[in-house]
Amino acid sequence: MTTPTAHAFSPGGMIVREMEPLNLEMPFGSLDGFITPVELFFVRSHFAIPDIDMKTWRLKIEGEVETPFELTYDELREMEPHTIPVTLECAGNGRAFLTPQAKGAQWERGAVSNAEWTGVRLADVLRLAGVKASASEAIFEGADEGEIKEPPGPAGKIHYTRSMPLKKAKDDVLLAFKMNGEELTPAHGAPLRVIVPGWYGMASVKWLTRIIASDKPFNGYYQTIDYAYWERGTSAPTLIPITEMQVKAQIARPGFADAVRAGEMYQVTGAAWTTEAEITKVEISTDGGATWDDARLLREPVRNAWRLWEYDWQVPFKPGKATLMARATDSEGRTQPAKRDDDRGSYIVNHCLPIEVNVR
Amino acid sequence: MTTPTAHAFSPGGMIVREMEPLNLEMPFGSLDGFITPVELFFVRSHFAIPDIDMKTWRLKIEGEVETPFELTYDELREMEPHTIPVTLECAGNGRAFLTPQAKGAQWERGAVSNAEWTGVRLADVLRLAGVKASASEAIFEGADEGEIKEPPGPAGKIHYTRSMPLKKAKDDVLLAFKMNGEELTPAHGAPLRVIVPGWYGMASVKWLTRIIASDKPFNGYYQTIDYAYWERGTSAPTLIPITEMQVKAQIARPGFADAVRAGEMYQVTGAAWTTEAEITKVEISTDGGATWDDARLLREPVRNAWRLWEYDWQVPFKPGKATLMARATDSEGRTQPAKRDDDRGSYIVNHCLPIEVNVR
Repeated sequence: MTTPTAHAFSPGGMIVREMEPLNLEMPFGSLDGFITPVELFFVRSHFAIPDIDMKTWRLKIEGEVETPFELTYDELREMEPHTIPVTLECAGNGRAFLTPQAKGAQWERGAVSNAEWTGVRLADVLRLAGVKASASEAIFEGADEGEIKEPPGPAGKIHYTRSMPLKKAKDDVLLAFKMNGEELTPAHGAPLRVIVPGWYGMASVKWLTRIIASDKPFNGYYQTIDYAYWERGTSAPTLIPITEMQVKAQIARPGFADAVRAGEMYQVTGAAWTTEAEITKVEISTDGGATWDDARLLREPVRNAWRLWEYDWQVPFKPGKATLMARATDSEGRTQPAKRDDDRGSYIVNHCLPIEVNVR
Repeated sequence: MTTPTAHAFSPGGMIVREMEPLNLEMPFGSLDGFITPVELFFVRSHFAIPDIDMKTWRLKIEGEVETPFELTYDELREMEPHTIPVTLECAGNGRAFLTPQAKGAQWERGAVSNAEWTGVRLADVLRLAGVKASASEAIFEGADEGEIKEPPGPAGKIHYTRSMPLKKAKDDVLLAFKMNGEELTPAHGAPLRVIVPGWYGMASVKWLTRIIASDKPFNGYYQTIDYAYWERGTSAPTLIPITEMQVKAQIARPGFADAVRAGEMYQVTGAAWTTEAEITKVEISTDGGATWDDARLLREPVRNAWRLWEYDWQVPFKPGKATLMARATDSEGRTQPAKRDDDRGSYIVNHCLPIEVNVR
C-alpha cells in the first residue's frame, strides 16, 4: 500500500488568484491535518489590507443599544478569551469548475481552510452594550474600503460590511485576535476578525472596527448584489443573502489529472464539512458516480469544523482514465447534490465534483 | 407674443428606444394637454408583449389569504369600476442626460405620461380574498417572461414581478382595463394592468395574472438588482426598492438646441409632478440657474397626476446661447435638487436639467 506523505506545509506556496486586493488559495492537495497552518490558510480580500494604527484603533458598538461604547484593543484582551476550531469556506470556492465560467476570482478547491480561533464572544460584547429589544440584526464593518467599479453599486468608497440576525450574533460568534495560537496577521484581519461558525467566509468580517445593532433589515452591497443567491418558492425568485455553508466533501489527493500507478493501493484523502451538524458519512466513487463506497472518517467530529477522511482505492490494473468523486452526508440527513443549482450564480458550489486521473 | 400651438398628436411619432422588447418614448415636446393620448403614452417593456388567450386568462389571488380564488375577465368587469387620472414616470426617465452614460434604455424626457385609468380597486379584490393578518406585502406577477442575460440574475425564465407593502396595496391602487376611456391595448398591459398612483412606473405591472399575499419580504430581481438604489444612513449603504416618484418639473418647449427668436416673447411650457402631494410652485430660470421666476400653474391640482404650467419668457435681444431650467416644489415642501445623487445609479433622475437653446 502506497500512501502519499511527502506533502510539506507549502508545496510550492499559495496559489495566487489576485494580487491587489490579495486573494490567495490554499493548495488543497497539501491538506495534511485538521488544522491549516496560517501560511497555507486561504486569503480573501475585497479591498487593500488597511493600514491600522493601534494607538487610535477602537471597536465601536452603536445603533440600537442602551450604551454605545468603544473598546480599546487592550480592553478587549482583558475580557474572557475562548478558543474554537472553525472551518471557513469562501462562498465562491469551486467556482473555477463552473461552465460557462462564472464571474469572480477563479477559486478551485483551496478557498477553504480550518483554524483554531481565539477571541472574545460577540455575545459578551453585546451584553456590555445592552442591545435593545427593537434590534433584529447586527451590522459588522471592516476598516477596509474601496470603490465598487461595476454597477449596480453605491457611489464612492464603501467599507466591507455584512449583517446577521441577532439570534446568530448572540449564539456562537467570536471576535478573534489569535489564529492557531499566534497573533492574527494583517492578511487574516488583524487586529480583530469576526468568526462566524458554520457560515461561508464572507460573514467573518476582517479588520473589524464597528458593530451596529439595527432594527431594520440591512441590504448592504455584500449581501444583495454580491454574496446572494436566488430562492425559488411559489412566486418569482427572491434574493437571499448567502449564510450557511452547505454539506460538502472535497478530495485533496489525487488532484486533477494526477497520474496514479495501475494496480496500486492509493490512499484517497480529503475533508468534509457542513453547518450546525456533524459529518456522518463520506462516500467515494471511483467510476464517475456509478457506484459508491464509504470512506473512513478520522478523529471525532467537531461542530462547524471540517472532518478529515481517507479511502483505500484499488487502482485498476488496466491503464486509462478514472473519475473519482466524493459525497458527504451530515447528521441532519443532508447530502451533497449531484447537480449544480444555477440559481446560486457564482456561489455555493457543493455539487459532487469529478476528479479525473490518469492510470498508468 | 408667439405661442407654439401647431403640435399635432404625433409629431413624427414616438421615439424608439428599443424594438424588442418594445420601448417607446413620448416626444415630450408635443405635450399638449393634461391627458396624454394613448398613441403618445410611453411604452416600457422588459420582455416581449405576451400572447394572452382571453378564454383561459384568469386573475389569480393566492398566498396568505383566507380564500385563494380566480377571477375571469367578465367577473372583473362586473365589479364596481373607478376612474382616476394617474401620471406614470419610468424610474429611468432622464437617464440619457447622465454622464458618464448610465446603463439601460437611454430615455430623455418622454418616459412620463398621464392618462385616465379605469378599473377595479385592488382593495376590493383583496377584500374578496380576505388577506390574513400575517401578510405584509402583495406580489404582482405579469404574464410577460424572459431570461436575465447578465449576472447577477436568476437562472432560466422569470416573469416580471414586483411587490408593495399591503398598506399601499389597500390604499389607492387600481387594476385597470381601460385607458383614456378606451379598452387597454396590448402594449399598455391588456387585459389588466396594475396602476400604482404616485409610484414610478415599474410598480404598475402590466399583463397582470397573479397577486400573491406574502408574510415575508419579497426581494425579486426587479426590486433589488434592477429598480433599486442605495440609501446611506449612519452605516454602510443599504439597497432600497424604488417606489415613490420624486418632485420634478420638465420643460416641454423649447427643446434641446431649439432656435428661439431674439427679442420675442416665448411661451415656455411643461409639466410637474410629485407623490402624495400637490405641486405648489414651478420656478423657471433662463440664465442657467442664477435667478428664478415663478411659472403659472394651470388648472386645479390633481393628486398623483402632473400639473401643466407655462411661463412667458422675454427672449434676449442679443443672439447667443440661453440656458433654461425648471424647478418644482410640492405641498410637502420638497423641491427638486440642483445636483445629481450618484447613489441612485441609473434611476430617479430629478435634479434640475439645463436646456440650452440658440437665440437667433
